[in-house]
Amino acid sequence: MAKIAILGFGTVGSGILEILQQNAELIQQRTKQTIQVKYILVRTKRPHPSEHLFTQSIEIILQDPEITMIAEAIGGTGDAYRYVKAALETGRSVVTSNKELVAEHGAELLALAAQHNCAFLFEASVGGGTPIIAPMHESLAANRIDKIQGIINGTTNFMLTKMQQQNMGFDEALRMAQQLGYAETHDPSDDVDGLDACRKLAILASLASGVHVYPKQIPTKGIRDISTTDMQAAYKRNSVIKLVAWAKQQNGRLTAGVEPMLVPNEHQLAQVNDVYNAVLVQGNMTGDVMFYGRGAGKLATASAMVADLIQVIRQGNALHDSLFWQPAQQNGELLTEEKPAAYYIRTTNIPASMLPVLYGSGELVLDDGETVCYLAENTNAEKRQRAATKAKALGGRVMLELRCIDE
Amino acid sequence: MAKIAILGFGTVGSGILEILQQNAELIQQRTKQTIQVKYILVRTKRPHPSEHLFTQSIEIILQDPEITMIAEAIGGTGDAYRYVKAALETGRSVVTSNKELVAEHGAELLALAAQHNCAFLFEASVGGGTPIIAPMHESLAANRIDKIQGIINGTTNFMLTKMQQQNMGFDEALRMAQQLGYAETHDPSDDVDGLDACRKLAILASLASGVHVYPKQIPTKGIRDISTTDMQAAYKRNSVIKLVAWAKQQNGRLTAGVEPMLVPNEHQLAQVNDVYNAVLVQGNMTGDVMFYGRGAGKLATASAMVADLIQVIRQGNALHDSLFWQPAQQNGELLTEEKPAAYYIRTTNIPASMLPVLYGSGELVLDDGETVCYLAENTNAEKRQRAATKAKALGGRVMLELRCIDE
Repeated sequence: MAKIAILGFGTVGSGILEILQQNAELIQQRTKQTIQVKYILVRTKRPHPSEHLFTQSIEIILQDPEITMIAEAIGGTGDAYRYVKAALETGRSVVTSNKELVAEHGAELLALAAQHNCAFLFEASVGGGTPIIAPMHESLAANRIDKIQGIINGTTNFMLTKMQQQNMGFDEALRMAQQLGYAETHDPSDDVDGLDACRKLAILASLASGVHVYPKQIPTKGIRDISTTDMQAAYKRNSVIKLVAWAKQQNGRLTAGVEPMLVPNEHQLAQVNDVYNAVLVQGNMTGDVMFYGRGAGKLATASAMVADLIQVIRQGNALHDSLFWQPAQQNGELLTEEKPAAYYIRTTNIPASMLPVLYGSGELVLDDGETVCYLAENTNAEKRQRAATKAKALGGRVMLELRCIDE
Repeated sequence: MAKIAILGFGTVGSGILEILQQNAELIQQRTKQTIQVKYILVRTKRPHPSEHLFTQSIEIILQDPEITMIAEAIGGTGDAYRYVKAALETGRSVVTSNKELVAEHGAELLALAAQHNCAFLFEASVGGGTPIIAPMHESLAANRIDKIQGIINGTTNFMLTKMQQQNMGFDEALRMAQQLGYAETHDPSDDVDGLDACRKLAILASLASGVHVYPKQIPTKGIRDISTTDMQAAYKRNSVIKLVAWAKQQNGRLTAGVEPMLVPNEHQLAQVNDVYNAVLVQGNMTGDVMFYGRGAGKLATASAMVADLIQVIRQGNALHDSLFWQPAQQNGELLTEEKPAAYYIRTTNIPASMLPVLYGSGELVLDDGETVCYLAENTNAEKRQRAATKAKALGGRVMLELRCIDE
């Protein structure tokens, strides 16, 4: 019998207990063991059918030699970081869905796990219940990962889908996401400004490159500036707008970004709607492979954590040898890509005839006299900077620049 | 250093050598070992840069104690079966892309691996380079698998895509698939009649249910009867026609089938075109998860086999405990589903007014006087049988029945 502790008993923590109870028989068949929850770490005790498992003391858990695995569902990098570190240092394997923890401290915690001969697993940290981490480091292990393109924030994807399909504005789409519980009510900025996607991408980029990537190294833009006009312009170009998290490895250099992009309808990511997530991975041998599923949700996320617990039981100490990346300096360089690319540009109070002058050859997408949208074929940061300055001199403004996704 | 033998040196066998050479450095980083090919079993020797590795004797390979892993790329169930069995019996781990071998002898070979403390892995047998097997048995290990729906034959999917998008007939699409090397020239029936998809589905169904499923238990229909008329009718209904391999577990009973189905455009599988494969897996906790990628190709398939070799090195003997299903009687029951369902029906020489009489309520999709296509809302096998008999009595014929895919 494997005895475990669950740290935190919010949505995900209670989901873990529920799955271990509901699929108990099946899990036993698959692991030839019973997984028994011995402790649940809570901040405050309250009446609950499982309240006999509640404890407010991490010490009791860490001093119990029966506890060999810990499921962390606290979130953040405060207590969660200290408790996970202490657990690994005492040789307990830890599974988590905490993307912030992995994105900030992944290399250190993986090294601790290796040092203390236990495992640190985090399948649930990217894509919720959708298998991404394990397939990337196991099934694609024979590949160099050349490119990752993903939709890895369900909230913004839901909002962009509503904006595209129902002509909603940003504010209305945000209110709807908040009403449905997809976005935080008091401060939705982690989702809307791309930070959540940035953390998840940092994890995927670390895994692909073998060296820790910090979120602050990834240029990140959110979706606040996207308007219904942009949605209409995208539609006219047989495209949609998606918040894309991407990373590329070319000639040994890693570049990465999180930004809303123009995605043609034929692109696999264009079909990923609502709260669904998808990650397209390009291996140098396998070509494009895509993983798709619900990116969040109590039971989906918890089931990925239970799968990680099952892996610890099945594979024991082998895991820390395969899932691993090197530490890196905290103040690493920004992973900006400098390559010229096609861009969608929205301007205001600039005559349409000026756009080719500012951005070179391209195509006029929309012109209502005030707002002019232009698809520039090939532009770089310097050219766009110059264009924005000239636009101001002309008494107008560049309101939005969106890169067109690579093929 | 891990020394291996490759059995067979056709497309896949030579792909394995190529990947081990080209990605050697990366594989060494990931496994902390070098994988060295010591033998390549060939039928006839011929000049080749690696001809010093060629041998025509399986005995030399099996008697060499340095060989700990074998990659089988012969195909079929003759020599391949005998050699794989002998390798496992001497404690060598085996990786293969041979779906026929796994579908016919999987349970026996998995049991042999467990008995002799080695591994039998076959990620490449379904979906080529697309990770499906490992994610199903590892990442979804906390789930009961309730449903699988897949497009797992690239050749027929290529043909159906051409028929749908370019209004080609079956014969023309087949010729094109043959010219491109996607379909066998002398006898394309394994693909076209659904047998290849059936074998792959048998593997997925065995994995999901935990008990061996033989291909002959799976009712299987191919795509020979699909005409351009059907494609037009599907288009009118905002749908496409796909060869779907499906399996369901409900109330402890497994049902399965391979058949062309009407798939609405909003369904995730509708967007899977050309030679791409995709498998949609529904877990009772995770909900829908989809794996998508190229279903075949030399390097994609070979890279999945190399990933399996890497797993053997990383996890050693732990693998035979997790990837496992029980043996079953060869003469198991047919896994037919008896549930009523919506069907698309194409008839000839039957007045359109008779269709509601024959099939109950539904919708007329197409009527050119001779051919009438009808979408029956709810029909079962008995009703369809009776309708076909009545149609004959009326001097007409039912030409095609296609089930509409479940939501």
